[in-house]
Order: sequence, then C-alpha cells, then structure tokens
Amino acid sequence: MSRPVTPLVAVDLVIEMVDRPGRPILLIERRNPPHGWALPGGFVDVGERLEQAAVREAGEEVSLVVRLKALLGCYSDPARDPRGHTVSAVYVAEARGEPRAADDAAEVQCCLPHRLPPVLAFDHALILADYRHFLATGEPAPLRGVPGA
Amino acid sequence: MSRPVTPLVAVDLVIEMVDRPGRPILLIERRNPPHGWALPGGFVDVGERLEQAAVREAGEEVSLVVRLKALLGCYSDPARDPRGHTVSAVYVAEARGEPRAADDAAEVQCCLPHRLPPVLAFDHALILADYRHFLATGEPAPLRGVPGA
Repeated sequence: MSRPVTPLVAVDLVIEMVDRPGRPILLIERRNPPHGWALPGGFVDVGERLEQAAVREAGEEVSLVVRLKALLGCYSDPARDPRGHTVSAVYVAEARGEPRAADDAAEVQCCLPHRLPPVLAFDHALILADYRHFLATGEPAPLRGVPGA
Repeated sequence: MSRPVTPLVAVDLVIEMVDRPGRPILLIERRNPPHGWALPGGFVDVGERLEQAAVREAGEEVSLVVRLKALLGCYSDPARDPRGHTVSAVYVAEARGEPRAADDAAEVQCCLPHRLPPVLAFDHALILADYRHFLATGEPAPLRGVPGA
C-alpha cells in the first residue's frame, strides 16, 4: 500500500503563568509567516508524541519547562492554516518563571485570558474562546463540523 | 519554507450501540494489514475535518450514521502503528441499527466494553481501557510520555 497523504500535525499550547496574578497566558509574535500574535506551538516531528512535541515547542519558543494539564481539543478546519491543512492538538499547560522569546518567536507577552489582542494568527482566537469556556466549566473544546456534534 | 514532514493523521471511533442491552461497542476485523480486530477508523483526507473523517469512516466501515459525543483523546506513540508514525484522534460516538461490514472491514461484531477479544490491533486495547475509565469517570484519556502529565 502506498503511504496515504493526510493533513500535517501540529501542537499548540495555552501556557498559564501560575506564579503571576490572574494566571496570564503566553502569546508569541511570530517571526515567520503567517505573522502576528499566536499561541506557542509548531509541527510534530515523526517519532515524537504530541505531548513531547508540546513540551519541546514551549522550551524552544518561550524558554520554559511546562507541565501539561489537559488536552483542550483538536482543531482541524482545513482553512485554519494558510500554509496548508494542518491539524493542531492544543494543550493547556502550566509554567513558572520568566519567559524568553526564541526560535520562531520574536517576542513573548503575558495576557490575561479576557484581555487578548484583537487579532490573532490562525484560529487562535477561537482556541482561546474555547479556553475561556474550559476555565469557566472544565469542558473541553466542542466538536465541530458535523451534525449533532 | 519547504513543507514539513509530520506523522500522519487518522481517526478511530468507539461506537456505542445505544439500542442494544449494555450499550455494546463495535469492533471490525481488518481486511488489510495489520490484521485483527480493531476499532473502526482510518486516515484523514486533506481538506476534511477530523470529525468529518470520523463520521465518514463509520459510514464506510460499519454502514452506520453515527453521532459524535466526545473526543476521548489523541494517541501518538510512534510505535502504535506498524505502518509508520500515525497520530489518531479517537472519538466516542453513538449509533442505532444494524451494522454491516464494508470497505476495509471484513466483519463487524458488537462487544460489551468489559468483554473484548484478548488481542486487538494497534494500541486499541489501550484506547479501550481509557474508554472504560471514561465510562466510569467521564474523564478523557490521560496525557502520556512527558513528566508530570
């Protein structure tokens, strides 16, 4: 059987800074297209688990060791990434200390979840709306794109 | 930027037959390697959401219209699929009626969740252990492969 072609796989992280008032989350300013503010994250390597990719990307982009708390959801709208169809598994994580932008991140900022920049890259505004619902209810992201889901 | 290489993306389904005593779930006998009993599922097409792929695969393999209830978890152990590294998003779904094997499924059977065949393909025994925990607690699959997750 020939190897099938599927969407690419990425991870993104909502990183809660648990040692700061209001538990702000981290956004990065992307160095590469698409530009803009976004959640830290990136493509998963072959041979690596999603969870390992999430921890690696947090280390690379915001220079923090994170502890993963939960899978918020999977985001798979074919139009969510202008570079091509990419499925992202989004994790909620905790960290402490001083974030420092590196690698694909030009800048990093702490934002309270209800005070976010008006425009975010990809579908990260939708992800963060789901995160606020998760904070309020403990529920993961809703399923989308099919009847009754 | 050259297109990155990532694991492939698939979906699998735990389909609860809600019109039968004990709400049995469906297993299929795979027509193609790796052989054995497994959850219905398959690769995600480019341009299709995960949820749409799950509904499509249920229609193709067990001839049922399913309603997705929840994302059980994402399974991404690089060794979970002998054909190569494949990440699977696993959905819990409900269906009614008469399943009929088709496409990649040679047979289909209804199994009570605590009376499964001793050997299942891929990591589907692990997935179904997580499903039994989900039934008992409502909790999704645990995160794996990183410290403290």
